[in-house]
Amino acid sequence: LNRNEDLKIKEFIEEMHPADIAEVLFELNDEDQVKFFSILSWEQAGKVLEEVNSETFLEFLGILRREHKILLLEQIAQDDMVDLIAELSEEKRKEIISLLNLEDAKSVRELLVYDEDTAGGIMTKEFISVRKDITIYQAIEDLREMAKDAETIYYVYVVDKNKRLVGVLSLRELIISRPNNIVEDIMHENVISVNLKTDQEDVARAVSKYDLLAIPVVDDNNRIMGIITVDDIIDVIEEEATEDIYRFAGASEVEDLEHYNISERIFASVKSRLPWLIITVFGGLLSAQVIGGFQEVLNKNTVLALFMPLLAGMGGNVGTQSSTLTVRGIAMGDIQGKEVLRTLFQEVCIGFLVGLCCSIIVAIVSLFFIQGEIILSFVVGISMWANMITAATIGTLVPIIFKKIGVDPAVASAPFITTTIDITGLSIYFTLTTILLSRLVY
Amino acid sequence: LNRNEDLKIKEFIEEMHPADIAEVLFELNDEDQVKFFSILSWEQAGKVLEEVNSETFLEFLGILRREHKILLLEQIAQDDMVDLIAELSEEKRKEIISLLNLEDAKSVRELLVYDEDTAGGIMTKEFISVRKDITIYQAIEDLREMAKDAETIYYVYVVDKNKRLVGVLSLRELIISRPNNIVEDIMHENVISVNLKTDQEDVARAVSKYDLLAIPVVDDNNRIMGIITVDDIIDVIEEEATEDIYRFAGASEVEDLEHYNISERIFASVKSRLPWLIITVFGGLLSAQVIGGFQEVLNKNTVLALFMPLLAGMGGNVGTQSSTLTVRGIAMGDIQGKEVLRTLFQEVCIGFLVGLCCSIIVAIVSLFFIQGEIILSFVVGISMWANMITAATIGTLVPIIFKKIGVDPAVASAPFITTTIDITGLSIYFTLTTILLSRLVY
Repeated sequence: LNRNEDLKIKEFIEEMHPADIAEVLFELNDEDQVKFFSILSWEQAGKVLEEVNSETFLEFLGILRREHKILLLEQIAQDDMVDLIAELSEEKRKEIISLLNLEDAKSVRELLVYDEDTAGGIMTKEFISVRKDITIYQAIEDLREMAKDAETIYYVYVVDKNKRLVGVLSLRELIISRPNNIVEDIMHENVISVNLKTDQEDVARAVSKYDLLAIPVVDDNNRIMGIITVDDIIDVIEEEATEDIYRFAGASEVEDLEHYNISERIFASVKSRLPWLIITVFGGLLSAQVIGGFQEVLNKNTVLALFMPLLAGMGGNVGTQSSTLTVRGIAMGDIQGKEVLRTLFQEVCIGFLVGLCCSIIVAIVSLFFIQGEIILSFVVGISMWANMITAATIGTLVPIIFKKIGVDPAVASAPFITTTIDITGLSIYFTLTTILLSRLVY
Repeated sequence: LNRNEDLKIKEFIEEMHPADIAEVLFELNDEDQVKFFSILSWEQAGKVLEEVNSETFLEFLGILRREHKILLLEQIAQDDMVDLIAELSEEKRKEIISLLNLEDAKSVRELLVYDEDTAGGIMTKEFISVRKDITIYQAIEDLREMAKDAETIYYVYVVDKNKRLVGVLSLRELIISRPNNIVEDIMHENVISVNLKTDQEDVARAVSKYDLLAIPVVDDNNRIMGIITVDDIIDVIEEEATEDIYRFAGASEVEDLEHYNISERIFASVKSRLPWLIITVFGGLLSAQVIGGFQEVLNKNTVLALFMPLLAGMGGNVGTQSSTLTVRGIAMGDIQGKEVLRTLFQEVCIGFLVGLCCSIIVAIVSLFFIQGEIILSFVVGISMWANMITAATIGTLVPIIFKKIGVDPAVASAPFITTTIDITGLSIYFTLTTILLSRLVY
């Protein structure tokens, strides 16, 4: 990028979306980043900063003079501003807040108080509200005035004289109503709202269920404190899905670690993954104990050891499949009431059928390994089958029981299920083989 | 519910959200369902049907007279109508379309053609578009007229005389612009749109990235064919997250089977889960082969068999953790370019560290199992450690390689990784123990 090309580039960039500009910025080296950033208008630059992480935000802010910093910060939406500075040091935070105008500074300071996983932590105070006793005409006039700073103008919230939320009107309804009507007579009284302390996952569920573009956030006295718009809800849904996927793998880390360096990331990951692994270690040692108890059978038929990894693998997979579907079903609200028994019955049937198919394959193929000892192959197949039915049952029951006793199935199920299935699987395998072999052979 | 209470209930229900009404309906028995449904206004009843599945839709429609059916169907949004009838038989479908007005019937027939996972399959034709050469005043008048039938009025799409999409205006901008301006001079020319054939996952990514409330869908000639609103995008994101989670467990079923009976569901699940399980069977048999190759060592030290489940469990878990993070990272676009090497380095380091911690625990605790044979414990610990580093490496590399060669990592990674880790783990375990034991003991 050189001086002469600046004007051309500027024209091109003016039509670009801030999200795309942010992406281009990330591809450039430090020097070009600064050049590119300085071409942007204040409005665009502000929107671009809404897309970057705290580190980049500080970097770009650092290259500006004080009066330019003020101009730039004015362009950033409140909720994004809070996200950006929440992760900074106390000192940096104060410095940035001191550059905001009085009103914004007050809002940002207020918003910083709330836990970032709650409605309060993701809301913005830039919303539109009107008193219930004014006319539609007056409401539209108010809206025009407030539109510039609002995150969305598509919902107008109606409050009483104590700022309590009493109704809502969509912009659509405002526009098609007669101007001399009173707001109170037109508004919907049944407003769907969430509390400041509502978990962001529940907020997302409400917005998704009721197909809202924004949801108001109220305090314990039903006073409206802010709103959350649907674009932030989409971020929450994606974040929660990632979290759920990680949890299935026993890696509970929220990988929002962009602003950390690699050694900090590694240690954070190790810390979050170790608990599950250590549970697995002790589960594995219990398995060793179980095998130890059957050492005599094992000494007589060392060939039984050959099929232990297969046994553990099949049980683990069947159990994981059942538990994954159950955990997700519980999270999505699909498994409740009479659906619980139906799910259990269904998963046990599936375990029975897939177990049957796989056991037959194992019994036949294992013949080649153990030189035609048909009885042994038969015994291995039967144990495998019993193990898979048990695994499906455990995989379905454990999340349901955890949910009943108030433990989050997504967090607790996976390590508990794998360990339990390993131990029951080995017990079934050795018990059945011992009994069957002693009956059939000796 | 009896006659006398009807009026009270009716008043209460009028203020209820359709999503809540649908929920209540599901809880009632068949007879009460019909009674409850008959209390609703046509508008409410239509909105409730948008929330139910095809089976329930047919059931409720079935209890109405022809002229009432027509009234009810008019209330249902096009995109939901298409979803509802897409799963019906050809005959039922024709019957329902014949009850629609000409315009709706034409749209619905058109929409039914598109694959349900593409932009065309989830869009609605109920959008607002204006010609580029009219005034803002005229545009607002047009909008008022079209508002009743539109899914959203918050974006007004601008077209040329060939219906090609040339711009977009938000309702917000329309309202704050001067009435005598020409649309073309105010509109944004850089419209973000998707093609009819775009995969719904890519549509969701665009809406999420650009924070849109709706996205226009165009054909190959850039003519606007429909729009997709953000509430449908949220459904797509939730559906895709569920699909991803199932894939990690090797259960690729899309569990949208509400309208099937239990035996159909069970067979669908068995069919979708068997492939992975059968891969695991052959992987397990390969493991058996590996163990068979070391039978001599095993016969001498049957105690080595005790730790095989532990070995498989630890390797599997570490590998799953690494692969889950890599697969999700690839899906979210976080792992590309120089991030690939960084991720690999990071995961190997994590494998090294968690492996070290777990191996030390295993080495110490295993002492109690094997009556103080320090050398054996040491050997087990070292093999466990090597196995975990390998597992982390395989878990990270496999999804990256699959992505490179154009295979979907989310589908292919899990079964391949578990099997590979099992086999390499056992090979490492027996090779290392053979070498170390022969050096240290004999």
